[in-house]
Amino acid sequence: MNTRQLHELAQQLRVDSVRAAAAAGSGHPTSSMSAADLMAILLANHLRYDFDRPAHPGNDRFVLSKGHASPLLYAAYKAAGAINETELLTFRKLGSRLEGHPTPRRLPWVETATGSLGQGLPVGVGIALAGKRLDHTGYRVWVLCGDSELAEGSVWEAVEHAAYEHLDNLIVIVDVNRLGQRGPTRHGHDLDAYARRFKAFGWHTVEVDGHDVDAVERAFGEVRSTTGQPSVVLARTLKGKGVAAVQDREGMHGKPLPDADEAITELGGVRDLRVEVQSPPAARMLHAVQGGHLDLPRYDIGDEVPTRDAYGQALAALGHARGDVVAIDGEVGDSTRAEYFHKEHPERYFECYIAEQLMVGVAVGMAVRGWVPYAATFAAFFTRAHDFIRMASIGGAGVNLVGSHAGCAIGEDGPSQMGLEDLAMMRSVYDSTVLYPCDANQTARLVASTAGLEGIRYLRTSRGKSPVIYGPTEEFPIGGSKVLRASAEDRLTVVAAGVTLHEALKAADTLADQGIRVRVIDLYSVKPVDRVTLREAAERTGCLLTVEDHREEGGLGDAVLDAFTDGRPVPRLLRLAVRTMPGSATPAEQLHAAGIDAESIAAAARLLVEEAVVR
Amino acid sequence: MNTRQLHELAQQLRVDSVRAAAAAGSGHPTSSMSAADLMAILLANHLRYDFDRPAHPGNDRFVLSKGHASPLLYAAYKAAGAINETELLTFRKLGSRLEGHPTPRRLPWVETATGSLGQGLPVGVGIALAGKRLDHTGYRVWVLCGDSELAEGSVWEAVEHAAYEHLDNLIVIVDVNRLGQRGPTRHGHDLDAYARRFKAFGWHTVEVDGHDVDAVERAFGEVRSTTGQPSVVLARTLKGKGVAAVQDREGMHGKPLPDADEAITELGGVRDLRVEVQSPPAARMLHAVQGGHLDLPRYDIGDEVPTRDAYGQALAALGHARGDVVAIDGEVGDSTRAEYFHKEHPERYFECYIAEQLMVGVAVGMAVRGWVPYAATFAAFFTRAHDFIRMASIGGAGVNLVGSHAGCAIGEDGPSQMGLEDLAMMRSVYDSTVLYPCDANQTARLVASTAGLEGIRYLRTSRGKSPVIYGPTEEFPIGGSKVLRASAEDRLTVVAAGVTLHEALKAADTLADQGIRVRVIDLYSVKPVDRVTLREAAERTGCLLTVEDHREEGGLGDAVLDAFTDGRPVPRLLRLAVRTMPGSATPAEQLHAAGIDAESIAAAARLLVEEAVVR
Repeated sequence: MNTRQLHELAQQLRVDSVRAAAAAGSGHPTSSMSAADLMAILLANHLRYDFDRPAHPGNDRFVLSKGHASPLLYAAYKAAGAINETELLTFRKLGSRLEGHPTPRRLPWVETATGSLGQGLPVGVGIALAGKRLDHTGYRVWVLCGDSELAEGSVWEAVEHAAYEHLDNLIVIVDVNRLGQRGPTRHGHDLDAYARRFKAFGWHTVEVDGHDVDAVERAFGEVRSTTGQPSVVLARTLKGKGVAAVQDREGMHGKPLPDADEAITELGGVRDLRVEVQSPPAARMLHAVQGGHLDLPRYDIGDEVPTRDAYGQALAALGHARGDVVAIDGEVGDSTRAEYFHKEHPERYFECYIAEQLMVGVAVGMAVRGWVPYAATFAAFFTRAHDFIRMASIGGAGVNLVGSHAGCAIGEDGPSQMGLEDLAMMRSVYDSTVLYPCDANQTARLVASTAGLEGIRYLRTSRGKSPVIYGPTEEFPIGGSKVLRASAEDRLTVVAAGVTLHEALKAADTLADQGIRVRVIDLYSVKPVDRVTLREAAERTGCLLTVEDHREEGGLGDAVLDAFTDGRPVPRLLRLAVRTMPGSATPAEQLHAAGIDAESIAAAARLLVEEAVVR
Repeated sequence: MNTRQLHELAQQLRVDSVRAAAAAGSGHPTSSMSAADLMAILLANHLRYDFDRPAHPGNDRFVLSKGHASPLLYAAYKAAGAINETELLTFRKLGSRLEGHPTPRRLPWVETATGSLGQGLPVGVGIALAGKRLDHTGYRVWVLCGDSELAEGSVWEAVEHAAYEHLDNLIVIVDVNRLGQRGPTRHGHDLDAYARRFKAFGWHTVEVDGHDVDAVERAFGEVRSTTGQPSVVLARTLKGKGVAAVQDREGMHGKPLPDADEAITELGGVRDLRVEVQSPPAARMLHAVQGGHLDLPRYDIGDEVPTRDAYGQALAALGHARGDVVAIDGEVGDSTRAEYFHKEHPERYFECYIAEQLMVGVAVGMAVRGWVPYAATFAAFFTRAHDFIRMASIGGAGVNLVGSHAGCAIGEDGPSQMGLEDLAMMRSVYDSTVLYPCDANQTARLVASTAGLEGIRYLRTSRGKSPVIYGPTEEFPIGGSKVLRASAEDRLTVVAAGVTLHEALKAADTLADQGIRVRVIDLYSVKPVDRVTLREAAERTGCLLTVEDHREEGGLGDAVLDAFTDGRPVPRLLRLAVRTMPGSATPAEQLHAAGIDAESIAAAARLLVEEAVVR
């Protein structure tokens, strides 16, 4: 398209953004209007994309990091013929595919959910890394950011990493419209301020007037031909560009234009231009799942093995069986044991350094491209990426997250390193799977089975050694549990997982010596939870005692209760969890101080049984 | 101290770090040894600090952002005479004040808990902002960072903000020892790489050999006299400096030295130098709590007011009554309504732009200095700062967090903007208080009462209007609840809070018309929870139905269950929560689709009552 046509197209995108927001009675037309020229030029002259085949491996990828500018995206879809006029005007209405912020659950051309700012670029880095190091199909990744969101640290984690990895297939466009939600940004229209920062991190930068069609055209050409480093186009724009009533004015964020009809007239009226978007080059996916034999590690019953070791060894084995498995780590691979995978599959290992938001963003990017990522760090440090995990679930991304060093059982390092809130965080994620194995064979089997699941899969591993109690052929269905002690005389049921499972077994043996029989359930699948087995145990024994190396809120105890919130009668319940603030101490001292060791379990059980007798 | 003395002192810090870790059998001596010269010079010649009066308002503040180098900190305390030899060797043992990572709960000279990397600088920015804009006592804030942690985006949020705020009272020292946990950092010993980045953000930078005592001495002198911008000393160091067996070697992270005795000999043996740390200048705290009259806003019963409005208005009023209240926001003050406070108390308002980790870090820094911070953003976006909140609770920092736009009730914006996991996150935080008001008067009262609490206080507010149902003089004790409907014929109890409370009331009225009486409890205090009232309602009505605009895991429903996990009989339970992935729709449509509106509540209640009849 030539200059005049591009200008017309940009005006159409503005008009359609205004119309969509007007029809919805809400939305972000002004944030769309600032970037309309950028989007028009990208769509018409630079993006290679087959809207009929969004999964085409040669397609460029486009990420709208400033997700609130969704009217612009949908206007572009309309211009490309992907959606029609009628659908555009369903924006933000019940049942519409055109949500307030774009989500891949509904729209085939959206690959990652945005709307929480500062996430598009880390995900873009993941896609670009997949493109460079795995897919080899030559696509570019275009990420459109707002200027406000450059305040998010996650952006700079990604900026650093993209340059470090020489991702010249990654192009960021920043719509510098100088106005955030409630007022001016820190740097206003000072493009140099942004350029200095990006340059310092090793990026190629281009500054441009974002409404000068020819200049933007040249800028996009320049960044497309830049090699060896990622590029950023810093575009000076005006929020609400083209409509005097809102242009460059404060207080106009996130609302329809005061007079849509007048605005449309001012913008030259409704148009119906169609863009022929360039087709992608022919390309083939290279990562067809290899049908290799899965030869999981096997551990002998009675051996003492940390579950984190089993994670690393199982993942390395899985990597041989499946060519689509990749591992990502936050510079703690020697602790999480992702290093076992690294050693055997260095080409599918991605070091993200100490940047957990980036790490999860990269995992999402890999998942978007069809890879099966396992991202690992300390369980505690996944809290750093909580918002990324939340957004990944909104987007339906399939990622495995593996948190090591769970609970106070880590010992001397103290509370900053203890994952004590991770189960609560991961359980509350939509449609997540949460697993907490207690031995090495169980861990290995669960690592293998999570590869085939949907959504967020969380596996919690432990630092210290645990005795192997299951044979290597034992099966552990997701949503299942194992009844490890049971008799007709059981007076109560102890429910545990991970380190506390072993404490529960010890307690059960002690109690048995004292003539008190208790049932013990290994609740390795914390979500979904095995309602049937729990319900049956409750009916048989009348009382449940849950024990977890986690805060009392949101963890295993609450997971057990899930089985009893259906209106049917509920058993008596007692919960043991970490209620104190631990300091430094040995693992055994920690478990004892928190009241979740065998002695504490046995004491609580005796109390419950005696109470029942009294009743 | 002169060059020779400083060198000796540094060697002592190394030796004591080695000894502490050897006695503990764990810890990070090599990460301590790299920074020993830096610490010695700071302590002896630059820090102004009265160890007998850690609360002295004129004290410089020191933050060990690389918290794993705690042996170095404790060795410095010993050199300053604050702790003795015997205590030093209790490092990492049960009951010792000298934890694996320093925490203020145990040590009076530690102000903020570290150990999760990348947090010391954001908190340091908060302290420095307090120093510049509130305390006016002229102290400097020294933050010792590792090089690995510069990969964390939170660091760059703080770097950006410190320069923007011209914090020349803030000095960062980076111990560039080139080795992270599992291997080399991205930039190794390339100090220029770091300098370029800091400079681009507007910092004064000094590069120095971190083992050249005279050079470091000069560098510290230079940064102390720098005005108008923050400074960073980038120090090239060697991990494990001084002991050939570990110096600059990979694989030596986080473990005692292989031969401590030999290492101590190589370092010149045990010393017992004492440092006379410079006293701070006389200074007075300026923020004595003003005893002003608290004139909270008053809302008329029946009016429709968003609880977020009440938050802003109540906070503005509280700001008049208390001179120590400060407000912090993440560039959404027009949404959270923190703008009301801004308008009346601009000097105590801190804009952190879209950087939630920075925002919470600043809040912690303010709390450290005795201020009472209220930090607000969308409930959903506090997930961004989850790790900061976790660490704040470890450090015992008293901060108020206010999350607006709770739940699917926000309507059209869609799931990325909905706080649906915030209650789970905040409840799992150690010693937290979690409040969820349903009307404006209740909100105002709760805002006022949280100012006097300890630890993390979370207040959840709503976007849309809610009818005022309480009078302005009604009291709402923390840990309480309100029984809003009750009769002798109640067949079940509906427990709700916030928007669902109003739905519950509507449902109760509908049911009453149908001859079914139900009790309704407003559980505004989600944590601590009102066990007595819940237990009594359960005993009287036999069945509880919880309704929440939140995921079913970890929220109000689980909070209610807390009242019944003490081994006593449990009522029948049914839970309504957001189990779907919402899209865009009106608030009413959202509540209906999620099954938490009045109609859904009434239907569930009827089912439960009929079931009970069948039984």
